[in-house]
Amino acid sequence: MNSLRQLARHRALPSRAAPRVLPAQTSVSNRLWQRCFSATPNAASQAGLDPSKLEVTKTTTPKEITASENLIFGKTFTDHMLSVEWTAADGWHTPRIVPYQNLSLDPSACVLHYAFECFEGMKAYKDKNGQIRLFRPDKNMTRLNKSSARIALPTVDAEALTKLIGEFVKQESRFIPSTRGYSLYLRPTMIGTQSTLGVGPPGSALLFVIASPVGPYYPTGFKAISLEATDYAVRAWPGGVGDKKLGANYAPCVLPQLNAASRGFQQNLWLFGEEEYVTEVGTMNLFIALKDKDTGKKELVTAPLDGTILEGVTRDSVLELARERLIPKGWTVSERKIKMSEVAEAAEEGRLLEVFGSGTAAIVSPVRNISYRGKMVNCGLKEEEEAGEIALQMKNWIEGIQYGDESHPWSYVL
Amino acid sequence: MNSLRQLARHRALPSRAAPRVLPAQTSVSNRLWQRCFSATPNAASQAGLDPSKLEVTKTTTPKEITASENLIFGKTFTDHMLSVEWTAADGWHTPRIVPYQNLSLDPSACVLHYAFECFEGMKAYKDKNGQIRLFRPDKNMTRLNKSSARIALPTVDAEALTKLIGEFVKQESRFIPSTRGYSLYLRPTMIGTQSTLGVGPPGSALLFVIASPVGPYYPTGFKAISLEATDYAVRAWPGGVGDKKLGANYAPCVLPQLNAASRGFQQNLWLFGEEEYVTEVGTMNLFIALKDKDTGKKELVTAPLDGTILEGVTRDSVLELARERLIPKGWTVSERKIKMSEVAEAAEEGRLLEVFGSGTAAIVSPVRNISYRGKMVNCGLKEEEEAGEIALQMKNWIEGIQYGDESHPWSYVL
Repeated sequence: MNSLRQLARHRALPSRAAPRVLPAQTSVSNRLWQRCFSATPNAASQAGLDPSKLEVTKTTTPKEITASENLIFGKTFTDHMLSVEWTAADGWHTPRIVPYQNLSLDPSACVLHYAFECFEGMKAYKDKNGQIRLFRPDKNMTRLNKSSARIALPTVDAEALTKLIGEFVKQESRFIPSTRGYSLYLRPTMIGTQSTLGVGPPGSALLFVIASPVGPYYPTGFKAISLEATDYAVRAWPGGVGDKKLGANYAPCVLPQLNAASRGFQQNLWLFGEEEYVTEVGTMNLFIALKDKDTGKKELVTAPLDGTILEGVTRDSVLELARERLIPKGWTVSERKIKMSEVAEAAEEGRLLEVFGSGTAAIVSPVRNISYRGKMVNCGLKEEEEAGEIALQMKNWIEGIQYGDESHPWSYVL
Repeated sequence: MNSLRQLARHRALPSRAAPRVLPAQTSVSNRLWQRCFSATPNAASQAGLDPSKLEVTKTTTPKEITASENLIFGKTFTDHMLSVEWTAADGWHTPRIVPYQNLSLDPSACVLHYAFECFEGMKAYKDKNGQIRLFRPDKNMTRLNKSSARIALPTVDAEALTKLIGEFVKQESRFIPSTRGYSLYLRPTMIGTQSTLGVGPPGSALLFVIASPVGPYYPTGFKAISLEATDYAVRAWPGGVGDKKLGANYAPCVLPQLNAASRGFQQNLWLFGEEEYVTEVGTMNLFIALKDKDTGKKELVTAPLDGTILEGVTRDSVLELARERLIPKGWTVSERKIKMSEVAEAAEEGRLLEVFGSGTAAIVSPVRNISYRGKMVNCGLKEEEEAGEIALQMKNWIEGIQYGDESHPWSYVL
């Protein structure tokens, strides 16, 4: 309610005498969006993040390692955390590795009221030689900066942060299980810490990275899931922020998931618009493999980056591998809008080959069926199957790169 | 990415054998939305909030009162805060008034990652007899529950919380300036505190209320503002959460405001859809007074509650007062969609009487002009005027009720 005064306080307003008027615009387009915001992502953040200044304070009470079979995603954390403060006046402060500890926040801190928060999800893997590897960390850093810039939080030098995360992961090396399928989940997070209730760009922020050892998403092999198509709630829209990894996109997703769960489904599938375009499943991207109605040619489809879906790193990896390795086998690979009715029609006509979600946690997550308009759409798996051919293939290809079986530029050795 | 496993852990899933399929739905409607979510807002929260159990720990270091002229919105706070914990197992714990203090949060707390947070904005006023008054606190409590239920946070007994807020405000009485136009801004806030990275309904939460003495929004009288119509970013969408007071709705608003400010405008005006419907201004609701093209009859218009605008308490108050006091004077009062082109046309034809925002901070905020499609739409004020007749009238009516000059059921005496 006080944005105006707050803004005026934060940034000097140009003269009000002759406001520059934007040229006429008729439609919301990604290009226009980017143009209008172009000034911000590169805004100078005073002192840059400097990995050479890293200070390490080791814990005096090292934790016991949790047995692999008892690991629960994001529940147990390592001994330390990486932490860097930022202020508008001084930029990035000294990066520190400190014992994992509670944050002390003023109750008026803007992260608690206005969701000035964004994060990344990535993993560190131990390969068969005991080397630690990250998977495409550059993609996470790029996305973190897109997210933070969109909510007026500072951006960060991608290489510097990758280097610091590497130091942190090496420090926590003993927590990375060496069993295949296990890894150390990393959660880089940025929050606005300014203590004032005025709605404006935060004058201070905290970047921290915590780490949680995790097991495979499907410890006993794939288990195909059932989805409920959600047509009563909308996750994201063009011109909104659904393509950024903001906290803001997550809390509102839980209730539709709970509703789907109460009706027996493991996840909800977000449809968009009157056309009921397929967008995302829960918090994963979605892939659909089907045969063309006319030519019979196989096509792997996922929704395009039009602002309504998250720019998943695994989504991008599946697409790149599909282009490299499936197109030569006669596949078409498409980033295009696909209606739920088109998926249902393909299922009815026996042309739906398989459907799977993609994300950092599971890599791929096969889908058995989708509840849509009072019918169950069978996604092409045989009754005894828990995963389709492409899902299996993708999991093996990506895991092979993550654990260094295949030498590949996506794997970043620490 | 781990919603499924997290959900399964939180709530036992019904048998997967025969999932109940929802009947076919074709459109996103408010009614459908409410039906699908009906189970949640009334979900039992184990132990209810019990004001009789209130425990008070007084500060040993009382703060000095800031001189009225130095007050900045939401920057200085009172001696104490009201604080109540909630857990899924035990419901609401003992309510406490404690010295204002930092919160200690695990870095994995879900409020910091997934924006499990919602809040209210309300004020306490000292009337000419020194009595303390709240303004329509029932509306804030109802909205708080709508917000919290939508993001799977607990709901609270509205009367119990109002009573506790009353006790808290009485405790902080010395911070409420007695000068007209001054008040104590109250910020009830609820955050999810569960320490786990799985995306699911929080198993623990914290409700707290902090208070900040504030001065009038326009200390030297109204100052009409200039708006930039935003067509490149979209604040809210039908079926989304833009009608709830969630933190998630605020951080994404700052960049469009900064962009508008960089071009010389005090606020941005959110348009919606290809029709460019007028929705909200910055973080306020918007009212437009114009004459009908055919009949010349005066009409006060504001956007309807279709899910894309916040259900403002001031908006509702302006509407109710307009219905009671302007309709007898020949006005039409409408909650209807209005296109920006209709506003621009009315301005061109000399039928636009005035435009103003409405919100808790300013009550009303008059608008001088709106930059739209390369033109400046003049909102009807004369050059020497800073507010129109209706804005002035509404401010006086509402302030009269808030400060108890007029005896009215909206004013809640503590």
